[in-house]
Amino acid sequence: MANILEDAEDIRRRGGGILRSLENLPEGCREGIRLGEEVELQHLEGLKPRRIIIAGMGGSAIGGLILRDWLLDASTPIYVSAGYHLPGFTDDETLIIAVSYSGNTEETLTALMEAMERGCPILAVTSNGRMRKISEERGIPLIPLPRGLQPRASLPQQLFSIAVALRRIGVEAPWDEVGEAIKVLEQLRPQLAPETAPEANEAKSLALGLWGYIPHIYAPRRMEAVAYRLRTQLNENAKLPACSASLPEGFHNAVMGREGPEELLEKLAALIIREPGEGERLKRRINAFRELLEESFGRVLELWARGRGLLSKILSALYIGDYTSLYLALLYGYDPSTVKSIELLKRVG
Amino acid sequence: MANILEDAEDIRRRGGGILRSLENLPEGCREGIRLGEEVELQHLEGLKPRRIIIAGMGGSAIGGLILRDWLLDASTPIYVSAGYHLPGFTDDETLIIAVSYSGNTEETLTALMEAMERGCPILAVTSNGRMRKISEERGIPLIPLPRGLQPRASLPQQLFSIAVALRRIGVEAPWDEVGEAIKVLEQLRPQLAPETAPEANEAKSLALGLWGYIPHIYAPRRMEAVAYRLRTQLNENAKLPACSASLPEGFHNAVMGREGPEELLEKLAALIIREPGEGERLKRRINAFRELLEESFGRVLELWARGRGLLSKILSALYIGDYTSLYLALLYGYDPSTVKSIELLKRVG
Repeated sequence: MANILEDAEDIRRRGGGILRSLENLPEGCREGIRLGEEVELQHLEGLKPRRIIIAGMGGSAIGGLILRDWLLDASTPIYVSAGYHLPGFTDDETLIIAVSYSGNTEETLTALMEAMERGCPILAVTSNGRMRKISEERGIPLIPLPRGLQPRASLPQQLFSIAVALRRIGVEAPWDEVGEAIKVLEQLRPQLAPETAPEANEAKSLALGLWGYIPHIYAPRRMEAVAYRLRTQLNENAKLPACSASLPEGFHNAVMGREGPEELLEKLAALIIREPGEGERLKRRINAFRELLEESFGRVLELWARGRGLLSKILSALYIGDYTSLYLALLYGYDPSTVKSIELLKRVG
Repeated sequence: MANILEDAEDIRRRGGGILRSLENLPEGCREGIRLGEEVELQHLEGLKPRRIIIAGMGGSAIGGLILRDWLLDASTPIYVSAGYHLPGFTDDETLIIAVSYSGNTEETLTALMEAMERGCPILAVTSNGRMRKISEERGIPLIPLPRGLQPRASLPQQLFSIAVALRRIGVEAPWDEVGEAIKVLEQLRPQLAPETAPEANEAKSLALGLWGYIPHIYAPRRMEAVAYRLRTQLNENAKLPACSASLPEGFHNAVMGREGPEELLEKLAALIIREPGEGERLKRRINAFRELLEESFGRVLELWARGRGLLSKILSALYIGDYTSLYLALLYGYDPSTVKSIELLKRVG
């Protein structure tokens, strides 16, 4: 098993575009910042909206979900809307950010139309497609994502271009965390690389630990989007079913699953996302939770976030998780870049 | 196997308090309405808050989650906050509804303190404990939940007392759906009863279908809270690990899990929550999704909601799901009322 992850050349060949996007994550973040600075915001600059709704599906929603968690303490509420319709409270003081990597996601295009009907200020984020066309025709400010990626690989450009645009629009938030976060990612990159042996490579060792199990991910509330990202990366890259839950909420329900039948629990691997500076009380409860799961789950693993600021913690955990999903795909012999079942569903008219 | 669910007397004996709460669900709804009408709202009446945050954990959060989904088209945004801290945008125009069945949930008590510090209008919902004491001392309007239940069994009182209070506070919403919803529950009740044979009892037949599998629940976005409720009822009543995901979002990621290893997928049962009037386009995509899962999941089941209004659909699906979790507990030989692992974690100081 382990020797599959010792052949860096083979990993590079089979990892393909997904690996290249991961290796370029810090550069992707910088490209996102540049895109956010360059976009002509027109009447949006300094708008200070009452609330923000980020509309997107799947790989085009993840930037919004991370912004929601990161900016939970900011003064402007951010919702992520994954579906055809905008919520009832959407009004002309609500900034709509419509994100569709392809530009042709039918749910998000419907939401964009609704936003235009309701007279909302709008920002579009896309690489192409109908969304680009509509935005150009209607004079909607547009952030052009780089083409030729898998939607899920455009995360750094999505996340940072929107973040910088929000700063310019007047949203107050801990923008100074961005510098540290990119530095933390740069430090982490060589440790996660194909050339680093499994013993020294956290993502490889997590992938080896998860192999043969259904992953159940538990994360603190401010890391909920990271847990969800890892879940969907396990779905898309590693073709695995996976679950995610948030803590402390899971202490009140999910923990009961460990009392279930042994022949089911032995198939599950718990992966707990931890962060430096958890606070004594929460740390004791997470440790007790881990010990309870160890008594019955097939395996219990931990993924430790890095850095001081919340954004560093979020993005470092995400980076380790993304690489883990890639290495796990290779262990199973899957091509991480294919998403056949998603494409089959898109074709259903 | 099936004969375990044919002995109504044995089911009544082993189902205990959880079964009695289920059989009293319609009466619990009416009790909730009465509690909401009777509470002295003082300065909250007609307040028309800018936004609403419902703070609660586990079984005390589920009423809030259902309100969030049901009232997504209403004009006042509702957030559910599950944790120690309130979001940064909490201000004195934000109504905080703090829900703790026991009254001693530490996360929710912390949130309640924060709400007082920020000068928010507050409504407390509890059966007892410190929350009752604080509310009485500070003159915070309090909805008294009936005592002696499991927190998760107080759902109808939670949900309807808060709904009626919101109506009195000036939140505009489809309140006229309440009458139909209770009627639908009353019609459903005899079909789900211990005396009804498995062939005619949707909950018994779902429980038999789920037996031996890890349940993965998929539900339309407006039924997200129902899927989550079923997940947590499977955790707490049936001591099972379980997952939930929302549609159409799951078409963009979760569906990829079906391409995974056979020896893991054969352990999973998909349960898709469906509703009358899905719309042609979504129906075709859900049907295609089901067919894709059928090729690799151990089992694929459907749970059909009833009624015309959204609230009827939500509560009928919840009712069938609640009974399913109870019957599944009995099939496994578990006592549905015990939650030992949750209690162990509560004791960690």
